[in-house]
Amino acid sequence: MSQDIFDTYDTQISPEGRMEVLSKAEVGRLLDSSHGGLYQLFRNCALAVLNCGSGLDDGKELLERYKNFEINIIQRERGIKLDVKGAPASAFVDGVMIKGIQEHLFAVLRDILFINAEIAQGAKFDLSHSEGITDAVFHILRNSNLLRPQVSPNLVVCWGGHSISGTEYDYTKQVGYQLGLRGLDICTGCGPGAMKGPMKGATIGHAKQRTGQGRYIGLTEPGIIAAEAPNPIVNDLVIMPDIEKRLEAFVRVGHAVIVFPGGAGTAEEILYLLGILLHPDNAELPFPLIFTGPEGAVDYFRQIDQFIADTIGTEAQKRYKIVVNDPVQVAREVEAGIREVRAFRKAHGDAYYFNWMLKIDSEFQHPFEPTHANMHNLALHKNQPAHMLAANLRRAFSGVVAGNVKDQGIRAIEKHGHFELQGDPAIMDSMDTLLTAFIAQHRMKLPGKAYVPCYRILKAG
Amino acid sequence: MSQDIFDTYDTQISPEGRMEVLSKAEVGRLLDSSHGGLYQLFRNCALAVLNCGSGLDDGKELLERYKNFEINIIQRERGIKLDVKGAPASAFVDGVMIKGIQEHLFAVLRDILFINAEIAQGAKFDLSHSEGITDAVFHILRNSNLLRPQVSPNLVVCWGGHSISGTEYDYTKQVGYQLGLRGLDICTGCGPGAMKGPMKGATIGHAKQRTGQGRYIGLTEPGIIAAEAPNPIVNDLVIMPDIEKRLEAFVRVGHAVIVFPGGAGTAEEILYLLGILLHPDNAELPFPLIFTGPEGAVDYFRQIDQFIADTIGTEAQKRYKIVVNDPVQVAREVEAGIREVRAFRKAHGDAYYFNWMLKIDSEFQHPFEPTHANMHNLALHKNQPAHMLAANLRRAFSGVVAGNVKDQGIRAIEKHGHFELQGDPAIMDSMDTLLTAFIAQHRMKLPGKAYVPCYRILKAG
Amino acid sequence: MSQDIFDTYDTQISPEGRMEVLSKAEVGRLLDSSHGGLYQLFRNCALAVLNCGSGLDDGKELLERYKNFEINIIQRERGIKLDVKGAPASAFVDGVMIKGIQEHLFAVLRDILFINAEIAQGAKFDLSHSEGITDAVFHILRNSNLLRPQVSPNLVVCWGGHSISGTEYDYTKQVGYQLGLRGLDICTGCGPGAMKGPMKGATIGHAKQRTGQGRYIGLTEPGIIAAEAPNPIVNDLVIMPDIEKRLEAFVRVGHAVIVFPGGAGTAEEILYLLGILLHPDNAELPFPLIFTGPEGAVDYFRQIDQFIADTIGTEAQKRYKIVVNDPVQVAREVEAGIREVRAFRKAHGDAYYFNWMLKIDSEFQHPFEPTHANMHNLALHKNQPAHMLAANLRRAFSGVVAGNVKDQGIRAIEKHGHFELQGDPAIMDSMDTLLTAFIAQHRMKLPGKAYVPCYRILKAG
Amino acid sequence: MSQDIFDTYDTQISPEGRMEVLSKAEVGRLLDSSHGGLYQLFRNCALAVLNCGSGLDDGKELLERYKNFEINIIQRERGIKLDVKGAPASAFVDGVMIKGIQEHLFAVLRDILFINAEIAQGAKFDLSHSEGITDAVFHILRNSNLLRPQVSPNLVVCWGGHSISGTEYDYTKQVGYQLGLRGLDICTGCGPGAMKGPMKGATIGHAKQRTGQGRYIGLTEPGIIAAEAPNPIVNDLVIMPDIEKRLEAFVRVGHAVIVFPGGAGTAEEILYLLGILLHPDNAELPFPLIFTGPEGAVDYFRQIDQFIADTIGTEAQKRYKIVVNDPVQVAREVEAGIREVRAFRKAHGDAYYFNWMLKIDSEFQHPFEPTHANMHNLALHKNQPAHMLAANLRRAFSGVVAGNVKDQGIRAIEKHGHFELQGDPAIMDSMDTLLTAFIAQHRMKLPGKAYVPCYRILKAG
Repeated sequence: MSQDIFDTYDTQISPEGRMEVLSKAEVGRLLDSSHGGLYQLFRNCALAVLNCGSGLDDGKELLERYKNFEINIIQRERGIKLDVKGAPASAFVDGVMIKGIQEHLFAVLRDILFINAEIAQGAKFDLSHSEGITDAVFHILRNSNLLRPQVSPNLVVCWGGHSISGTEYDYTKQVGYQLGLRGLDICTGCGPGAMKGPMKGATIGHAKQRTGQGRYIGLTEPGIIAAEAPNPIVNDLVIMPDIEKRLEAFVRVGHAVIVFPGGAGTAEEILYLLGILLHPDNAELPFPLIFTGPEGAVDYFRQIDQFIADTIGTEAQKRYKIVVNDPVQVAREVEAGIREVRAFRKAHGDAYYFNWMLKIDSEFQHPFEPTHANMHNLALHKNQPAHMLAANLRRAFSGVVAGNVKDQGIRAIEKHGHFELQGDPAIMDSMDTLLTAFIAQHRMKLPGKAYVPCYRILKAG
Repeated sequence: MSQDIFDTYDTQISPEGRMEVLSKAEVGRLLDSSHGGLYQLFRNCALAVLNCGSGLDDGKELLERYKNFEINIIQRERGIKLDVKGAPASAFVDGVMIKGIQEHLFAVLRDILFINAEIAQGAKFDLSHSEGITDAVFHILRNSNLLRPQVSPNLVVCWGGHSISGTEYDYTKQVGYQLGLRGLDICTGCGPGAMKGPMKGATIGHAKQRTGQGRYIGLTEPGIIAAEAPNPIVNDLVIMPDIEKRLEAFVRVGHAVIVFPGGAGTAEEILYLLGILLHPDNAELPFPLIFTGPEGAVDYFRQIDQFIADTIGTEAQKRYKIVVNDPVQVAREVEAGIREVRAFRKAHGDAYYFNWMLKIDSEFQHPFEPTHANMHNLALHKNQPAHMLAANLRRAFSGVVAGNVKDQGIRAIEKHGHFELQGDPAIMDSMDTLLTAFIAQHRMKLPGKAYVPCYRILKAG
Repeated sequence: MSQDIFDTYDTQISPEGRMEVLSKAEVGRLLDSSHGGLYQLFRNCALAVLNCGSGLDDGKELLERYKNFEINIIQRERGIKLDVKGAPASAFVDGVMIKGIQEHLFAVLRDILFINAEIAQGAKFDLSHSEGITDAVFHILRNSNLLRPQVSPNLVVCWGGHSISGTEYDYTKQVGYQLGLRGLDICTGCGPGAMKGPMKGATIGHAKQRTGQGRYIGLTEPGIIAAEAPNPIVNDLVIMPDIEKRLEAFVRVGHAVIVFPGGAGTAEEILYLLGILLHPDNAELPFPLIFTGPEGAVDYFRQIDQFIADTIGTEAQKRYKIVVNDPVQVAREVEAGIREVRAFRKAHGDAYYFNWMLKIDSEFQHPFEPTHANMHNLALHKNQPAHMLAANLRRAFSGVVAGNVKDQGIRAIEKHGHFELQGDPAIMDSMDTLLTAFIAQHRMKLPGKAYVPCYRILKAG
Repeated sequence: MSQDIFDTYDTQISPEGRMEVLSKAEVGRLLDSSHGGLYQLFRNCALAVLNCGSGLDDGKELLERYKNFEINIIQRERGIKLDVKGAPASAFVDGVMIKGIQEHLFAVLRDILFINAEIAQGAKFDLSHSEGITDAVFHILRNSNLLRPQVSPNLVVCWGGHSISGTEYDYTKQVGYQLGLRGLDICTGCGPGAMKGPMKGATIGHAKQRTGQGRYIGLTEPGIIAAEAPNPIVNDLVIMPDIEKRLEAFVRVGHAVIVFPGGAGTAEEILYLLGILLHPDNAELPFPLIFTGPEGAVDYFRQIDQFIADTIGTEAQKRYKIVVNDPVQVAREVEAGIREVRAFRKAHGDAYYFNWMLKIDSEFQHPFEPTHANMHNLALHKNQPAHMLAANLRRAFSGVVAGNVKDQGIRAIEKHGHFELQGDPAIMDSMDTLLTAFIAQHRMKLPGKAYVPCYRILKAG
């Protein structure tokens, strides 16, 4: 390659779509936001988007590599432009920024500065109540043009690790291919690995079936975007304000969920969804959920299944199916499940584009901050309803993800040492076993880096 | 016709577009609004839209004819439906509501209940300041998807009477045809007469040039919509909250203005625009303005021109051209003027879709309520800047329009008698002459009805 | 108007669509054709298209007015251009030819020089047999992109006079409007009067129902195009090689036929269609046929109905309905009829875009040349099957049309005097009565010209 | 996979596009062709298309595996259907044939039975002359809707082996990606390896740049289609009647050519193109030609370059550039070259969609039948102009390809033993060296099969 990957470029770009038609007042607020406390967040997310495809999953390292990167809003009578300085050369072709990356950049502007500012103002949304949070999630998604009426349910959420083996990656592509052949669209966390494979496979399936442009939706959040930068296939990118709203977005817009092998993040996602499905209000609600992987993933899913049985119980096990090494079967299960979802929504007059009827307890909605104290104090015992335990276990795994790959988390660990987790010995043992297996299977970080655990499980003396 | 025009139908319809994807909170607010004080306004505007094409310009008569008409919002999990009872049969084909009328109906819902509620809440827009009002106008227009970036300036506002002669109507069609042949789109007050002719002509011009779907924008307001129901060609309908915001919308989105013969409403529009253009900040701003009509309209424009000279002065006369009986020349003048507008906006970085740089004094923005007292107290004298006099004269004509065709105005006149107007004798004489000419030329009401004046000019004793 | 209607312009234009991608051999053949005997035909049709909208229905007068008009093909490496000299100014806007007229011009090139040359070469189509003629009709229509699969039957052929009263014209618009409201498309002979009204009405109906671009198909032939130049709404123009292929095109592509009042040409069309429908093979074939007009047309249709009863008999009367002054009823009948056509085609596996199953006897396919001798020798007696008599009567009316408005026919009459027609006295009486009524009703020529009959009915001594 | 790759399915499918609207005569001719001598060819090509993605490159083996496969045309009133029996299961998803494969199947029908029948009839094209052959090539391409006017030159032909190493395949993807990023479309021989990689890469490039649907054109011919079945990305498939017309199609529609490493087929393509470019009439014609491969391909291109120098001479070497391991540089060279092509065509009025000005000597157009006698008699000596020698060398390599992978060639070798080649010792040595290198580098067949040479080079005694 004649292009040095550490080269940088300067440029100015004009928005398209939602950010093209702004009022003077909105431009004013954007400028205020960009000069205020949100600037760092905006800059860092923008850099992550620009750095897409670099094979880096360390937010801290990224920020240090492009120290001189700057992004500023320029006000013009008609609206705004973005002034970009010191951007990674990989985002450009012959000096011109790649169109898809431009779009992602304006998605960052839209979601970090524009809509979040609106939501944070607080007049409009009451974030202390469950309804208010759901309302905010809805507005962010609608503002990003993600909610399309008149479309029959066909959106499959794919979860799984960003760091998976070649065999597992190929498997996610095969599953995506079978989904694409059946006209299904893909929504993932938008990074590499199991977040990219299904999209890549689906593009081939869509092309073979001449379905026209498929939808490849990426949902991320500011803390994770640097480690899991949107892959180039993503053609609808949304940056949700925090982990919990991102998870809610997944389960409100998806019509089925497939879980591929992954690490702590994937465990967090599984616990989140099972915790919600265990809520009595959701007992009758159809929600297709498949765990799948290639032959070699048998052990992995056995471990997860065991962990679920040990902690939140056998009732939870009824809400998913495990399919090993059979992409065609996975696609058929998903298709059949979505037919049920469609019938249910139609019968209850619910929207296809947003799962209003799914009850999400506020325990799963309020942001969890993984400080050392919060992690230490998590109630990891059986003396509570299953869905509450699921909520707390979810938080524990969420903290581990932060310690592994998020800039803030890494810095906290560097400063204060391991997170300490404690609870019922049986639960803690089960958790220890699972996390140890993840480490052994290299599921915590991208390959080529030795993993140094960010947590310690305190055993009862 | 096998259909009795007084028949009615019941139906339920689902929204498309903007109103299709609503949050639960928005649906809740809509229901609140529809059960509150806004219901009458919503119902009456809906009826006007449904009655389109009936040849009725009397709001009061319309309401009395369809006494049993009802329109209600039905809440469903996924959003809303409209339940319509006792609607005029002319809005249906074989029992199914005409698609264009459905769209207009949802435009009413969107503008009367949805966006206005949002604006009226007051948290978001400061309607006591000029910037806040402009901001509100911008939001209403953007919410209705009227503001389209990436489109070169091509929108011609056509003003003129709803009650004009056959010859004048044909002339407006010819002008519209020449505009259409040149790829220009049309924006009017959306009623019959000079508001319909240019659209009708332009459709033929557009068809001949294979320009694809043209834009036929109708801007109206709740008080006038019953008298000037949107004609069926209108494919973008916006109901602005009041006369002043409607006028501001015209001059912010239009790239040129053509004035055809009309009555009191047309005089109001002319005074509004000249008043604004006289503001020193707008001295350099290009704004093509053409008065035109067929041979027989020579006198009409001479009278208007004289009235302007007599009242706001010769400076104002420099801002318009009068072209008699030459549609080709009108279209060429407009085209040349728009080229200047485009160059100016480009040079100043202003948007093509919204004229941010046009200064509108708050005198022209605050709603004027035409009560008998307010009409009586208007400052109609020369002892003020020209643009202030223009503002007050505008209000006087606005009151006359209300007394002629608006439900509320007609009822006020029925109760309290004529509006009384007073001021400088020279101005009052000039005004008397003009209004008398309008009456003689049958420009106050649709043909077939004798006109009973709603005003009296008080002469200095 | 600042444009003199007798002004002319010169220009060069490039083709779009079918004529854009030509092989060298095709360009060579085009040049040969254009320099050969077809040049006059090509030039005259081109002039007719350019002159559209002038209100002239006299082919001879047109040719004399634009004596200097020339149109030539310029060869370029990549294909061709058309070089136009002395073209009527009405075809231009500010010096640029109107897009729709450009399209019509290239339709003339395509149909007169390109496809006809291919058909005339004779290797491909055997025009001496019925199947060969139908095959040629099919190829011309497919080559013009008229045959679109995947479209549900919705094409209504409207026949009727080019010279009709204002009341009748308004009625054709109302019928077109009701057809358009029901999503039906229009096909006519493409000239003024009853050929234009339904298209004009349908555009409003289509616009109101937001059906997107409707189809307005014009089918003409070289002899008639000058007298009935394509109106500007026509967005698919085909010039069939002769009258008989044009008539076959109508009945093969239309799914229903409406006949408005007209003159000799309309009578020709009625006799053509009834003659075909009387063929025993077509006995079971659904073919909706409605005669309709405003209140004042009652007499007209009574006369036609009587003439049919008198000549080809009561069996023929069963194939049509007469609806007076009820556009809604006409549209409903047409809609119901087309539903039957659809069911029949589906059941028999016939195409929606071409009526293969309709049997057309070769008597109706071979061109009839209206020389004085041929007219004189027509077998107008009852001593033959009804459909043969219909065929001969059709020829008689066809000759009258030629003598009225076609360049060649007018010149023949100027030279040799009246056509003389003879036959069974009862038939000749009936025919005389009908033609005399047409004259009295001004149905032979555009208004403003006294009609001098081109025929004489010989009564048996 | 729950699907056995040797399973088969039966189905009936309806055409879309070009084959949807057929005349009765055309359907009749199709049925005749399909029952005549062309049936085997049609069936075999159809099977190849259905078998796409199986990883088989042996036409003979394919035919033997699906012995019971049948494909027949069913006549219906409206047109045709295809009745398919015993088709490979891989072409279906849940019992329904994949849309893209349906399209390819109808491309086979269109090109093998429909257009070729038309061309073979002989009335229309004189295949004994150069112009007639070019005309036929043009008609086939236009009939398949490949020739699109109004598109700026952007089509890059990629040649190279179907059997290449993983490293080389990845390299072709990288080059395709860089081409796609620059908005360039891809045309290849439509099989696997270097024919698939550039398309795959380009899809990602196009997706990132949001260019909308790219064009991925596959040009094949009946003899090669079984061995190099169209890959699923191909969205425009054309089956040319023979090798020579396929080669002409490549150079007439492509705006630049990239050659990746390959075997005998690639050598054939190189000699074909250089032979043409050496014609004096083409001396000034710009035609970008790049040989490229990864680091490891240096030797390969050195050998090719040497062979060219040794045989057709140094003049030929001036017409190409060799770029090693630099996809960005390749894409930039191609882009620059195409800019020149565009300027040249514009200056000379040549079409962008078809290179009319390229002179192709008839030596390169007439089909060469690789019988043992013809191969033996090839004039492989320097006593002729360079472009004639190129023509003969091209034939020699063409024969080797036939012996390697084509059904007919393999059978001939099985029956008669090796092809024997003879000529100037220097040339024969050079050829021997090159072919031996191809064998050593496994470029003759897909991996996993030992290569048994189908030829023998006779050394001068």
